[in-house]
Amino acid sequence: MTTAPWRDPALPAAARVDDLLSRMTLEEKTAQLYGVWVGAATDGDGVAPLQSEMTAAYDWDELITHGLGQLTRSFGTAPVDPALGARALARAQRRIAAAGRFGIPAVAHEECLAGFTAWGATAYPVPLAWGATFDPPLVEEMARAIGHDLRTAGVHQGLAPVLDVVRDPRWGRVEETIGEDPYLVGTVGAAYVRGLESAGVIATLKHFAGYASSAGARNLAPVRAGVREFADITLPPFELALREGGARSVMAAYTDTDGVPASADPGLLTQLLREEWEFTGTVVADYFGIGFLQTLHRVAGTPAEAAHAALAAGIDVELPTLKCYGEPLLDAVRAGEVPEELIDRAARRVLVQKCELGLLDEDWSPEPTESIDLDSAANRAIARRLAEESVVLLDNPDGILPLSPDTRIAVVGPRAADALAMLGCYSFPSHVLTHHPEVPMGIEIPTVLEALRAELPDAKVTFAEGCGVSDPDDSGFTEAVARTVEADVCVAVLGDRAGLFGRGTSGEGCDVADLQLPGIQGDLLDALVATEVPVVLVLLTGRPYALGRWQGRLAAVVQAFFPGEEGGPAVTGVLSGRVSPSGRLPVSVPRVPGGQPWTYLQPPLGLAGEVSNLDPTPLYAFGEGRSYTTFTWEDFVGDPQREIGTDGTYDLALTVRNAGERAGAEVVQLYLHDPVASVTRPDVRLIGYQRVELEPGESRRVTFHFHADLSAFTDRRGVRVVEPGALELRLSASSADVRHAVRLQLGGAVRELDGSRVLRCETEVS
Amino acid sequence: MTTAPWRDPALPAAARVDDLLSRMTLEEKTAQLYGVWVGAATDGDGVAPLQSEMTAAYDWDELITHGLGQLTRSFGTAPVDPALGARALARAQRRIAAAGRFGIPAVAHEECLAGFTAWGATAYPVPLAWGATFDPPLVEEMARAIGHDLRTAGVHQGLAPVLDVVRDPRWGRVEETIGEDPYLVGTVGAAYVRGLESAGVIATLKHFAGYASSAGARNLAPVRAGVREFADITLPPFELALREGGARSVMAAYTDTDGVPASADPGLLTQLLREEWEFTGTVVADYFGIGFLQTLHRVAGTPAEAAHAALAAGIDVELPTLKCYGEPLLDAVRAGEVPEELIDRAARRVLVQKCELGLLDEDWSPEPTESIDLDSAANRAIARRLAEESVVLLDNPDGILPLSPDTRIAVVGPRAADALAMLGCYSFPSHVLTHHPEVPMGIEIPTVLEALRAELPDAKVTFAEGCGVSDPDDSGFTEAVARTVEADVCVAVLGDRAGLFGRGTSGEGCDVADLQLPGIQGDLLDALVATEVPVVLVLLTGRPYALGRWQGRLAAVVQAFFPGEEGGPAVTGVLSGRVSPSGRLPVSVPRVPGGQPWTYLQPPLGLAGEVSNLDPTPLYAFGEGRSYTTFTWEDFVGDPQREIGTDGTYDLALTVRNAGERAGAEVVQLYLHDPVASVTRPDVRLIGYQRVELEPGESRRVTFHFHADLSAFTDRRGVRVVEPGALELRLSASSADVRHAVRLQLGGAVRELDGSRVLRCETEVS
Repeated sequence: MTTAPWRDPALPAAARVDDLLSRMTLEEKTAQLYGVWVGAATDGDGVAPLQSEMTAAYDWDELITHGLGQLTRSFGTAPVDPALGARALARAQRRIAAAGRFGIPAVAHEECLAGFTAWGATAYPVPLAWGATFDPPLVEEMARAIGHDLRTAGVHQGLAPVLDVVRDPRWGRVEETIGEDPYLVGTVGAAYVRGLESAGVIATLKHFAGYASSAGARNLAPVRAGVREFADITLPPFELALREGGARSVMAAYTDTDGVPASADPGLLTQLLREEWEFTGTVVADYFGIGFLQTLHRVAGTPAEAAHAALAAGIDVELPTLKCYGEPLLDAVRAGEVPEELIDRAARRVLVQKCELGLLDEDWSPEPTESIDLDSAANRAIARRLAEESVVLLDNPDGILPLSPDTRIAVVGPRAADALAMLGCYSFPSHVLTHHPEVPMGIEIPTVLEALRAELPDAKVTFAEGCGVSDPDDSGFTEAVARTVEADVCVAVLGDRAGLFGRGTSGEGCDVADLQLPGIQGDLLDALVATEVPVVLVLLTGRPYALGRWQGRLAAVVQAFFPGEEGGPAVTGVLSGRVSPSGRLPVSVPRVPGGQPWTYLQPPLGLAGEVSNLDPTPLYAFGEGRSYTTFTWEDFVGDPQREIGTDGTYDLALTVRNAGERAGAEVVQLYLHDPVASVTRPDVRLIGYQRVELEPGESRRVTFHFHADLSAFTDRRGVRVVEPGALELRLSASSADVRHAVRLQLGGAVRELDGSRVLRCETEVS
Repeated sequence: MTTAPWRDPALPAAARVDDLLSRMTLEEKTAQLYGVWVGAATDGDGVAPLQSEMTAAYDWDELITHGLGQLTRSFGTAPVDPALGARALARAQRRIAAAGRFGIPAVAHEECLAGFTAWGATAYPVPLAWGATFDPPLVEEMARAIGHDLRTAGVHQGLAPVLDVVRDPRWGRVEETIGEDPYLVGTVGAAYVRGLESAGVIATLKHFAGYASSAGARNLAPVRAGVREFADITLPPFELALREGGARSVMAAYTDTDGVPASADPGLLTQLLREEWEFTGTVVADYFGIGFLQTLHRVAGTPAEAAHAALAAGIDVELPTLKCYGEPLLDAVRAGEVPEELIDRAARRVLVQKCELGLLDEDWSPEPTESIDLDSAANRAIARRLAEESVVLLDNPDGILPLSPDTRIAVVGPRAADALAMLGCYSFPSHVLTHHPEVPMGIEIPTVLEALRAELPDAKVTFAEGCGVSDPDDSGFTEAVARTVEADVCVAVLGDRAGLFGRGTSGEGCDVADLQLPGIQGDLLDALVATEVPVVLVLLTGRPYALGRWQGRLAAVVQAFFPGEEGGPAVTGVLSGRVSPSGRLPVSVPRVPGGQPWTYLQPPLGLAGEVSNLDPTPLYAFGEGRSYTTFTWEDFVGDPQREIGTDGTYDLALTVRNAGERAGAEVVQLYLHDPVASVTRPDVRLIGYQRVELEPGESRRVTFHFHADLSAFTDRRGVRVVEPGALELRLSASSADVRHAVRLQLGGAVRELDGSRVLRCETEVS
């Protein structure tokens, strides 16, 4: 008996899948195009809203006789011991393989943004904290560790990273983003993708595209963006993560942009993604997103029409249900309303990926899993380094930080003694354990209070909560003030509680009407400041909050963005001086709570002026952050030839010296200022950066290789071009702090760019 | 000696102008392309910001030897007696005519939005109040009166109406708009245009286009809108006002949309406006807007490049300066950088308009002006009727209104005793007199307090200001509370102070960060409500403010939008019951101050749902408003044949009966609900309305002639289409109060529309 071609590992995947498809029934091919959420289908208490109405009923044993495309969230739905979970997943996979004619298991996917969403897995800092590190290699290392743990547990695909660019900080999912600049999001996001993919796990870029721009920052609200904003701000991180990161999957966004839902947009999912960007992986739906085409977008009248629209646009897999891609799609194909070629196109993509994962091989079997440690010491070391690098020191006017080791410290605030204060909404504890209060956390998460006591054993540390995160009861203010007046310094630990859909002050569905600190925490801060005891504000937040109300009244401001399980020691390391702060803001910190949306990417008319009585100038600018040491920026040299072509390059270099007494890291940032263009352009935008770690007295030479492609933008025709004319390159310590600028002249004609354009400013450190 | 052809009134204007152009030098043609602001050039204390830097220096006597296109704001710059002003304008015109070779005077333009911006002229209600009347014929009557007064004073062109559709109520210029629905804005705006043009005055549609959508509601901030939002929401009022109103001028907007400044956009100003809409009038710049292409948009490097971009795009006249269209443009034409044909194209349009105005005629002379009454009794009667119809009664749960004639009334609040509380920022007193505090108002404006004392002579009326409009001093609360507790009812008169650029809480440049009542007026209202004396809230505002904080705690809510010089008696007429309230909201009143932007034109995802913890449902819906009488909606009949073609019509009719004891007016509103479309559509949108005045017991039959064109929208290709499928027509008392609905089926193919499409739902009342 000869091996069928589709079983032959010597043949290329495409040939194997062609053979396989020729053997499959319509039902079998279609079964590859959906995933199901086993624990969730029968359980009304869902993780996501609308879940019960959007999930189709099915008989599992009947279902899998045709095969199954994906298995949803075996670990991220309920708390299970990871080893037991892995064995259960393996059993399910064996059943799926045994039930179908071809023995093909499902692709198992799981959330993994800031760590594997599984009980007992490392909770890393959230993406906004990665952005603050300006350290892609470290993010890549984290993602590799996450990928390793996913693989160990039998998971093939991770639903991360989020590459949405912050357009309105009021949005609940800001914590899941890397920041408000597409270059920062793209470079850090691509590093994450490289890390995850290097472990053999499929990275899933989401949400493609536009989701972060929803009007009024309400989750899923319509996106009002034009083609140029979309092309120049929303899309670049995806292009970078595909081209440089090699991501193998993309998730379609829930939202519509200018009336066209992403999930039904062939221009986005096929013409741009596959034809222009040459993407060959799978496009998956966001959960229930295909059904939403009927129920929430109303561009389809029935589940079958929704399925047709999504499949034709280019969504290959419905998740985590078969409400549209199940019977409705089958019936429509049988009725001749949907061409079977569309089924074949999607099934081919799914099966090629399964083939590459080894899932078509005769000798496939789930990997044996005896014991699994998802929170290894190595993981914790990465989580610690990331957390430490992500803490942003925003103000320290009189040098109260680092704290003296033997001082009297009143720790105050609702985030000081809560381990969950460290975690984002997609962490397992915030995402799932909130439904299982009886289950222990599964990982060790020192609070700021615990960590501070450990960090400064000679200090006299007292604590008062003061108030809750979001409730209006101010009865605790009295004690908080009493503790403060007895102390030399007050450390006020304020911020968010991450959660889903109304259960948090930050997180998916937890959008806010303005950027004031949640609940009455601002009033608590007023009361503390009124004592005249110096107040060090420590923020553990999922978004920036307006701090203008306390400008000049705080002894220090430390901004951390959900720093993960090692966040307590990281923050207190900064407070004690053990850690030299080196984070830089990935989002602007505004002065006043209203006036949104605003980010730093503004043409002149979006900046302060005489034309409005609203001054949008942020209190702390994008890229801003202080250190305990001082850096000098010396020996700036640019090429003497300052006229280059519209395809030219230009090198500029400088020496960064640590002129202080402590080790530290500087982040050299390169911004582009385009004085005149055919369309309005941001006054400045980030086009390169380099983090440089320096011992006291040490210096390093940093060289930026600027390429004219980095000045490209989308012109009036919708074409990406480099225009001739003047450009200014600004080496800066933040978007508002220019240290050296050089004016170039680009000669020649307007140049239209193609897929080979340069996406990143290469740097060298010597 | 024969008359030159250009002087021959028997020839068509085009022929005359061709002849004239052939005789003119480049300098003479170019001189027709700008207007100057005589009083303002030497006066740093400008009405507009950036004015001094944007105004070119010139020698008047030298300048006019070449002729002059326009004269700017002879009346609206400083307080002058109108008759003296008219004589001064006539003298200036004679000088201009005498100085040039051809004897052609300038077009004199003036602001006139809610009345001629001249000292002593009638101050009508602001456009938001017109919107509240849902009464286009009355607005047309007002505009005719305004046009008459302008002509009397020698003004040819009025810089009105504003046809921007509210997209974010925080914007300062919301008071200048007609509301948040394009159909309401378009129909009322077209009526204004008809009125002004019927008096022989050129109406100027502004701001073309997109201005109201600036991000974060900051004046002049970049507009983030896609092509469909632009086509379906921003542009329709302009199309209606051109096609039905016959406006002869259009003003280019300051803003850019998706990176392209309107003033440099040939797609907008030439392809759409002239080629598609067949507009033949002039396009004028907004003040200094051409220079802003260089300084604020940075799409031009020099004034000459700015001039070239604007002229090529289709701006014919620079206002109110020659900074770009003066020497820089001349030099560029002489250097061959700008084709002279562009000068000719613009000059031809300007001169054809002058020809039509009679300004090329040999016998032209300024009309003699002996005495001028710009605030006639007839004017005041129109102002009164408009004001009365514009007052919106939002709540009156226990029928406290109308007030008893002999009650004890505590009038409280910073807007009760200030005549300026009645006026918008473009009224002469707010716009100009604020710079001349020594000059009297020039018109009589009863305050609410004065009017209430006159209205209810038997009532015991006391007054306390309570607080200022925007200052933080609450020392007046005590007296306000004291007056309230002594009274049977408190009438709290709160709201805005209109002004320009930081001098007001509403008006141009007076944008707000959120929608809480200005200053501490909300706290004053809290204090009044806490007395448990019934509080009637009267709002005199330029925008809607969030009122959810007082939901269920107010005895009545009366919303007026700067009701003009007769606003005091109009508001108190409603309070006393002399006037039966009939206004309907032209903008939604939100529940909470944050969460903007939002208007009622939302697809399902923009409405409340389980997906965000922000509920955007307004407290009072677009179109809402109460009466002192009750109306029944009877005998609803639609055609029995409910399937029509995509070019079909459908009639529906009902009888509205005044079932109460008082006269009153009902506004029957027709909304369209499109269940499934190829792009996301607003859940409902206004497509027709009819105001019906009824005596007690009286009834009228109202018929709506729906045409399928009214369901058109811009599809994915950017083409305006009528799609087949189901439609629901909803006869409603507000956008949230459906009384009768009928489901139609549109059969046939997708129909692409051209310029002959039906723009308005005709109605009949019998």
